[in-house]
Amino acid sequence: MASKAFSKLNALTSTLGKAAGKPIRIGVMGSGNWGTAIAKICGENAREHPEIFDTQVHMWMYEETVPYQGEQRKLTEIFNSTHENVKYLRGVRCPSNVYANPDVRDVSSRSDILVWVVPHQFVERICHQINGSVKSGSVAISCIKGVSVQEESVSLFSDVIQKHTGMYCGVLSGANIANEVAREKFCETTIGYDPDDTVNPRFTPEVISALFYRPYFRVQMVKDVAGVALGGALKNIVAVGAGIVDGLGLGDNTKSAVMRIGLMEMQNFGHVFFNCDRLTMVEQSCGVADLITSCLGGRNHHCAVAFVQTRKPMHVLEKELLNGQKLQGAATAKEVHAFLRHHNRVHEFPLFTAIYRIVYEGMPPEDLINVI
Amino acid sequence: MASKAFSKLNALTSTLGKAAGKPIRIGVMGSGNWGTAIAKICGENAREHPEIFDTQVHMWMYEETVPYQGEQRKLTEIFNSTHENVKYLRGVRCPSNVYANPDVRDVSSRSDILVWVVPHQFVERICHQINGSVKSGSVAISCIKGVSVQEESVSLFSDVIQKHTGMYCGVLSGANIANEVAREKFCETTIGYDPDDTVNPRFTPEVISALFYRPYFRVQMVKDVAGVALGGALKNIVAVGAGIVDGLGLGDNTKSAVMRIGLMEMQNFGHVFFNCDRLTMVEQSCGVADLITSCLGGRNHHCAVAFVQTRKPMHVLEKELLNGQKLQGAATAKEVHAFLRHHNRVHEFPLFTAIYRIVYEGMPPEDLINVI
Repeated sequence: MASKAFSKLNALTSTLGKAAGKPIRIGVMGSGNWGTAIAKICGENAREHPEIFDTQVHMWMYEETVPYQGEQRKLTEIFNSTHENVKYLRGVRCPSNVYANPDVRDVSSRSDILVWVVPHQFVERICHQINGSVKSGSVAISCIKGVSVQEESVSLFSDVIQKHTGMYCGVLSGANIANEVAREKFCETTIGYDPDDTVNPRFTPEVISALFYRPYFRVQMVKDVAGVALGGALKNIVAVGAGIVDGLGLGDNTKSAVMRIGLMEMQNFGHVFFNCDRLTMVEQSCGVADLITSCLGGRNHHCAVAFVQTRKPMHVLEKELLNGQKLQGAATAKEVHAFLRHHNRVHEFPLFTAIYRIVYEGMPPEDLINVI
Repeated sequence: MASKAFSKLNALTSTLGKAAGKPIRIGVMGSGNWGTAIAKICGENAREHPEIFDTQVHMWMYEETVPYQGEQRKLTEIFNSTHENVKYLRGVRCPSNVYANPDVRDVSSRSDILVWVVPHQFVERICHQINGSVKSGSVAISCIKGVSVQEESVSLFSDVIQKHTGMYCGVLSGANIANEVAREKFCETTIGYDPDDTVNPRFTPEVISALFYRPYFRVQMVKDVAGVALGGALKNIVAVGAGIVDGLGLGDNTKSAVMRIGLMEMQNFGHVFFNCDRLTMVEQSCGVADLITSCLGGRNHHCAVAFVQTRKPMHVLEKELLNGQKLQGAATAKEVHAFLRHHNRVHEFPLFTAIYRIVYEGMPPEDLINVI
């Protein structure tokens, strides 16, 4: 039960505190709505566990000038006086020990644990910006959703961060919508974290868990880093499938069957290409729970319903419904299909393949259930 | 893919046919809407695989007189001339090789495989009725949802059938709504079947699968009989939990978290009390898919939403919304709670316990997420 888990955590962190040296300094890279929600959580925990963490959490904020109470003000200045990110997470007050720092190299150089919450297209650029400033022996946690799929390979953003910065990087992912987490609506998340012996032994899974665990944000720790990262990307493909079923009006049994088959293909993909633990996808928040949330609602599901009902091409719907943004599930289905074709394993993923063919090759949506 | 699986099945059944002796005779006990839908499936497969099965499938139909085209007619006579169960599955035509037989002992005495689809309160009585008439060496498959929970023990209906008739009994369960299956809407099911050496070796898992597999009704065979049976009972408790979350307006992340925690408690219950395979609940239709369907809609979910929104006691809502029928999820929560208390394991099932306390002991629904 929660209270039991909580007192266990308190006992644990007090032990950790006694064993530890200098308080661990936390930095959060990014201050969008998810970044600010994560910084709020880290700030709450840094304050609650001063025996482990330095109380001040630095959040790197890209400096912008915004209109505020009739004048143009810097976003960092507003945040540091009001503790509210008035541009990206309006109406949520962060604890006052979260400090918005506009200097990305300063944040990286002072942090023992660096939490990454930036849009995925900026990851490499920021790695280059902080080049040479990363604190020796520090570790990273990536809260960036998804993976980067090329024809030959699938890259986890945690691997990109590790490659460019030298920091060991774990992954946090789950059924987490930033606005709901920020408003402390109960949910769960999964952290994949399995550092080898070269990583500072102070940064145990218990310390990482203590940094993110809140009564409203439950953390499960697993060793399967790739599995955690893949769940958040592949579920978007399945959500398109669930939307197709709903668009066709096939009913809840068919929908849950397509979701189950999708979950099995997510599991199989992780197993075949990353040797993932079979249980991550089917037992953890980053797998089954995130999949369920995405298939209940969300833009992938909604666009797929509209796709079936209007029979307009997806690029037209993306313009009409998403202001020209690419639909993640459709884009991922395309990338994953090219990757599977390259590796000659298309036939092992009939649902992923069918969704690709329906969206991009004119296969009738009605045929979905005949080919899976 | 479906077509591949199908041709594999055809090759397999042709081998089976050559190896087999006399065609296997199929009986279906029960002709409600689920019984008729199952008899339709068995009839289709018996006709499709004459090398394995006797083409005629006998469906035991409790004889009733019903008004039909201006006169009072026997339900069996109408069925055998129209191939439609006009009382319990109107509008669905069964194949003409399904024969409605009003003599329960005749059905049991002629059947090599006896498929049970009767309301659970009649199981024992029917076992007594057919006492002495069961064909020697025959096996059974129970399609009866749920389990029977007493304070000291949980009984599977498959065990009840086995105990009273001596037939080995497997279990079929999944995300299957009778009306949707009967109308050939795509779904999946799981069959738990693991006979020991004393059972006629002709009744292989492949034969059982061939009896139920349709392109619109996908069968997965597992050995974990208890896991299959438990899924269909315990998911109703979790559906009440999902309804409480929706009634409180907590959002899809919280809902998927409660569903995931519920799935883990279902898995744990099976593991602790029946040594079930951990994968049955999280990978099969009888577990995760049936749970999803039940949490998307259905009476357990709807009643729980109404319970939270009106704060009326459940027995009042049962009267108002279910015509006085007991809400399965609530009743199962109560039985399971008494069972867990008896075995001193309440603390291992915080979600099941919370749902019991909310429905029966006046715990505020808002406290759900504080205690799980």
